[in-house]
Amino acid sequence: MYVILVYDFGEKRVAKMLKLCRKYLNWIQNSVLEGEISEVRLKELLILAKGFMKEDEDSIIIFKGSKQYSFEKEIVGKERCRIDNFL
Amino acid sequence: MYVILVYDFGEKRVAKMLKLCRKYLNWIQNSVLEGEISEVRLKELLILAKGFMKEDEDSIIIFKGSKQYSFEKEIVGKERCRIDNFL
Repeated sequence: MYVILVYDFGEKRVAKMLKLCRKYLNWIQNSVLEGEISEVRLKELLILAKGFMKEDEDSIIIFKGSKQYSFEKEIVGKERCRIDNFL
Repeated sequence: MYVILVYDFGEKRVAKMLKLCRKYLNWIQNSVLEGEISEVRLKELLILAKGFMKEDEDSIIIFKGSKQYSFEKEIVGKERCRIDNFL
């Protein structure tokens, strides 16, 4: 399944969250990642994130789409991490 | 059309960007908005944003989906702005 994951974490936990997410998805902007991931892998990611997130302060939003081509993506301004897929 | 808009703006411009975006879309997390918008209104939003954004520093990513139900949304942790639609 194709997902877009956006997180909003406190400063002390933000780097850890990015490091974790990058193991599962492709980084496209500061706190935004996207990619193909299975339900099982996504659950794993969320369990690991819940291990250190503060649920009253931090948040994660996941948009799940069954097929990537149901989205069209437009980027304006600085594009970060274009080569993320190849690292 | 249904869009998810994520922006990453420098601190000096971030509040202005949020204020602008909230005129067009529903705020769901710090720098994430979503909603139904026409191509024309989206173009208008981008023209206004380009008026003050620094294209070498700031970025906007727009995910366009033709139908909202092609997404399923999952929120973990603190949910911001739930009543945004009603303000």
